[in-house]
Amino acid sequence: MRSLPEPIEALIDRLVRLPGIGRRSAQRLAFHLARQNPEELEELARAIARLPRDLRTCARCGNLAAAELCAICSDPRRDETLICVVEQPENLASIERSGGFRGVYHVLGGAISPLRSVGPDDLRIDALLARIEAGAVAEVILATNPTVEGEATALHVARLLRGRRVRVTRPATGLPVGGDLEYVDDVTLSRALAARRELVEDD
Amino acid sequence: MRSLPEPIEALIDRLVRLPGIGRRSAQRLAFHLARQNPEELEELARAIARLPRDLRTCARCGNLAAAELCAICSDPRRDETLICVVEQPENLASIERSGGFRGVYHVLGGAISPLRSVGPDDLRIDALLARIEAGAVAEVILATNPTVEGEATALHVARLLRGRRVRVTRPATGLPVGGDLEYVDDVTLSRALAARRELVEDD
Repeated sequence: MRSLPEPIEALIDRLVRLPGIGRRSAQRLAFHLARQNPEELEELARAIARLPRDLRTCARCGNLAAAELCAICSDPRRDETLICVVEQPENLASIERSGGFRGVYHVLGGAISPLRSVGPDDLRIDALLARIEAGAVAEVILATNPTVEGEATALHVARLLRGRRVRVTRPATGLPVGGDLEYVDDVTLSRALAARRELVEDD
Repeated sequence: MRSLPEPIEALIDRLVRLPGIGRRSAQRLAFHLARQNPEELEELARAIARLPRDLRTCARCGNLAAAELCAICSDPRRDETLICVVEQPENLASIERSGGFRGVYHVLGGAISPLRSVGPDDLRIDALLARIEAGAVAEVILATNPTVEGEATALHVARLLRGRRVRVTRPATGLPVGGDLEYVDDVTLSRALAARRELVEDD
């Protein structure tokens, strides 16, 4: 028998569509929400429903933005000669969190994936080419994910940039800092070995 | 610098309040939601915001309900002489999922916890006593959680039921089926040993 009341079932059905939320977590979340006061629930619902209205895509780089330009593109201290190309806004956020990058970004909006029928034309590649055409860009870092799709996308963009007076790079792949060799996958390990560097000890 | 636009930050702030959702998952969820179409977001927001309006507490057992009585209390095939007492509606849902129980329930709404300043008066204990007083209840299964708070609550209710003509039981604690001794905690293991039973082999 179906013992869950319809409003709970309906909410669970919505929650399981979210990434990383299985039926079990969805159920736990739904029961938790059922215990919250109406104001709390109203606030959460509002925070979700307002996204299409209040979130924009940065007109320059494709990052999520609250205005026409995102916080990074409107920051005059960022180095505009250095563009870091990523798949999604969350990848940009990860790089920002690492704190090591002072250039600007370009968000493609995904990666080339025949399986998911995402082709080059579905990505913001033309906009990237236009930015390079227009401005004084010295280097493009292709920081798409280290996956089959990400590699293919990086390769595709790299080919399009061939012949333009711009340096094209890709972040190193190798062993994660703090990781244990035992848990590193074979591809990463063999690439890290192939890309080994001379260890120079200081006297 | 703060690179996330305000609507995303606001949503993350709301999402991290949910159980089992850390900042990292909240961020992942927020970025995912930012990619959904307005209709999808509107539906999710609606499913959340309607809870206070459309969800009720079963007037008899305290379970979540879509009407005055929950699906179980309004099912004439359930055995009303057998009441299973649980802390929260999700515990009831777990027992229903197991499929082995044909009685009815009583949801206390929590467990006695001095730390969280939840006392006996904050739980639906009086309503339980009234049900026992009123009807032909033969057995009360105290299925509060096997935690310090749950045990204390079961003990408290058991004391209140002393002298009434009703059988009071508690589910067995012991080794989980399919588990590995190595991963069983010490308390469970020592209790399982103390509650050991004669193994009778059939001929």
